[in-house]
Amino acid sequence: MRNKLRLLTPGPTPLPEEVRLALAKDMIHHRKSDFVRVMERIQPGLQYLFGTTQQVLPLSSSGTGAMHAAVTNLFAPGEKVLVIEGGKFGERWREIAHSQGLVVTSLVQENGQAVTAEDVGVALKADPELRGVLVQASETSTGVLHPVHELGAVTRNTDVLLVVDGISAVGISPCPMDAWGIDCLLTGSQKGLMLPPGLALLSLSARAWDKVRETGSSNFYFNLLAERDKSLNHQTLFTSPVNLLQGLAVSLDLFREETLEAVYRKQWALTSMTRAGAASLGLELLAKTHFTWGLTSIKLPSGIDGGLVLRAAAECCGVVMAGGQGELKKSLVRLGHMGHVDWGDVLAGLHALRVGLIAAGGYSAARTYLEDAVGAYEDALREGCPEMRV
Amino acid sequence: MRNKLRLLTPGPTPLPEEVRLALAKDMIHHRKSDFVRVMERIQPGLQYLFGTTQQVLPLSSSGTGAMHAAVTNLFAPGEKVLVIEGGKFGERWREIAHSQGLVVTSLVQENGQAVTAEDVGVALKADPELRGVLVQASETSTGVLHPVHELGAVTRNTDVLLVVDGISAVGISPCPMDAWGIDCLLTGSQKGLMLPPGLALLSLSARAWDKVRETGSSNFYFNLLAERDKSLNHQTLFTSPVNLLQGLAVSLDLFREETLEAVYRKQWALTSMTRAGAASLGLELLAKTHFTWGLTSIKLPSGIDGGLVLRAAAECCGVVMAGGQGELKKSLVRLGHMGHVDWGDVLAGLHALRVGLIAAGGYSAARTYLEDAVGAYEDALREGCPEMRV
Repeated sequence: MRNKLRLLTPGPTPLPEEVRLALAKDMIHHRKSDFVRVMERIQPGLQYLFGTTQQVLPLSSSGTGAMHAAVTNLFAPGEKVLVIEGGKFGERWREIAHSQGLVVTSLVQENGQAVTAEDVGVALKADPELRGVLVQASETSTGVLHPVHELGAVTRNTDVLLVVDGISAVGISPCPMDAWGIDCLLTGSQKGLMLPPGLALLSLSARAWDKVRETGSSNFYFNLLAERDKSLNHQTLFTSPVNLLQGLAVSLDLFREETLEAVYRKQWALTSMTRAGAASLGLELLAKTHFTWGLTSIKLPSGIDGGLVLRAAAECCGVVMAGGQGELKKSLVRLGHMGHVDWGDVLAGLHALRVGLIAAGGYSAARTYLEDAVGAYEDALREGCPEMRV
Repeated sequence: MRNKLRLLTPGPTPLPEEVRLALAKDMIHHRKSDFVRVMERIQPGLQYLFGTTQQVLPLSSSGTGAMHAAVTNLFAPGEKVLVIEGGKFGERWREIAHSQGLVVTSLVQENGQAVTAEDVGVALKADPELRGVLVQASETSTGVLHPVHELGAVTRNTDVLLVVDGISAVGISPCPMDAWGIDCLLTGSQKGLMLPPGLALLSLSARAWDKVRETGSSNFYFNLLAERDKSLNHQTLFTSPVNLLQGLAVSLDLFREETLEAVYRKQWALTSMTRAGAASLGLELLAKTHFTWGLTSIKLPSGIDGGLVLRAAAECCGVVMAGGQGELKKSLVRLGHMGHVDWGDVLAGLHALRVGLIAAGGYSAARTYLEDAVGAYEDALREGCPEMRV
């Protein structure tokens, strides 16, 4: 008997059965009334998820495609932007901005550190020509949560657009677009939304739409103005990933039944659980204060090869976790607990982490790491999550 | 009791059950060995389908995304290309080329007419600075098959690249990339491949790769050189549409079991069947000689509103067909018979066409249109398809 496969990575995430059945539906035509009904059904759910009254646009691409779409539609070559580089996905903002011919100022953060609103304010004051701040809500490569709420307070009364990659935040931790003054919020289907990859979602504020019109981008495939016109008629500009949108309709229904508040509360509790379990195993956490919900980055003791840890966890326990990225590749385990994952899965994940650690030559005297973890989960569920306590 | 839904459009096409079950599989991680195995499994099948020894790259986009990728990677702003404009998708080549800053010469074809290799030869001679010919193998908007085989004979000994949109040709009618001297062949998942939309496939000849290196495109999301490096290691550059690739593996297995020759033979026979049925109904066909396989464009008698025909066919018979595009919107019915469609579906389609025609105020004295159609199918199956008889 093989172990059950448990996918505990920071995306793609496991799929609920309802979603899988929707993905398996036979095809409908993307220019007919059946599809229009799907588009009509998803828009209010997307606006609820994004916390916006603006149109949320589905794009046939990965999340990176939506990042590319945002940069090429919002900024003209030669314009200046501030990029928050806290890891691989911050670097990706910089690379996309460079490919578009933008002039980039980077605020590079140490691994595990979030940017501060103060530093961003200073940088914007130092160069009044900066036209945008490009940031991750959650930097997936390190598990750091940047203070988007506070950044919005800095940018909202200036002419600087706040462009937020919410790929591992939307549907996982609070990121209400309108309330926080976000000008562009985007995400991918394979994280909090509990879908396969292949669908990106993007929304712009009213002033961001003005900037798109002013910029007049020539990006043919990612043409947000034309896409918006289609979306207002419940259509897409080009052929859309029909079965992912059918799955999305089901996933959004699940969000509305559960309520976003309950989802955030659960994600916070799972995060608290994982952090408590890792600490009880004697392991250090990379992000001390501003940590991503739905993903925990755990440092390995020096001398322990993360590749061996992951392989043993997968082979002995059926638990698939992720390593670090770039220079952190072998020194980090990223345990994902976003989307359709529950406390029982995290128990399996923590035990698999211990099995992997010992297989890789590590040592752990921990005896109550599972009880400590589940206790932290119950406490966190009772107390509610930080944004709800504010 | 409602009618069964029969999707007889030129894409998306109905899905085989095996594919639907693969689409419903729970998620696997796109950077782990399970996914590498999917990528290893699909590459030989894709090369068989494309008729090439070159790498075939999966892209997370619609087919239009692959067209955009081809143009932006192959040609630098200011370069000259010849576009064959035989309908909406020829126009799309022009629009994409313009968006990239290319200088476009168009060979506009009348609706229903294919370009001739002679005209292309003359145009290339007239302007030795032309660097590419952009053409549809099948112009889906009119159901015309351009003579790609003959165009390849014109371009192969020149420095002009032959760039072929095979979106409604690959897996439907012969289009062997290497044998015909095609420099870029691309397709989407939702036509011959019997998958939902959301995945594009693209392959380049050796000399096209040289041109991509020379051009040095700055397209971040569609970076074909970087995508190729990943593909050679059974990876994708960014997160890929995992469940569509799992479905593709199943679809490609079906092609190999059936053989491409048998698929082409069937598609030719269904095309012959539909044409015979429409003629027997007294209707005129738009494309007289160079017609697409897998799609039949049928002209409506003057005064008949195509919108009413389609609505009645859908409401009374459950058969979903497509109208024309652009100026042909109301005067054409496009009956799709590509992918997972058989002779029984086409019988239903032809009867629905007659029901629609009469509901829209038309008249048909036809009595044996179904027998005529199925007879033509059997004859065509026996005789084999044209490219096999060559």
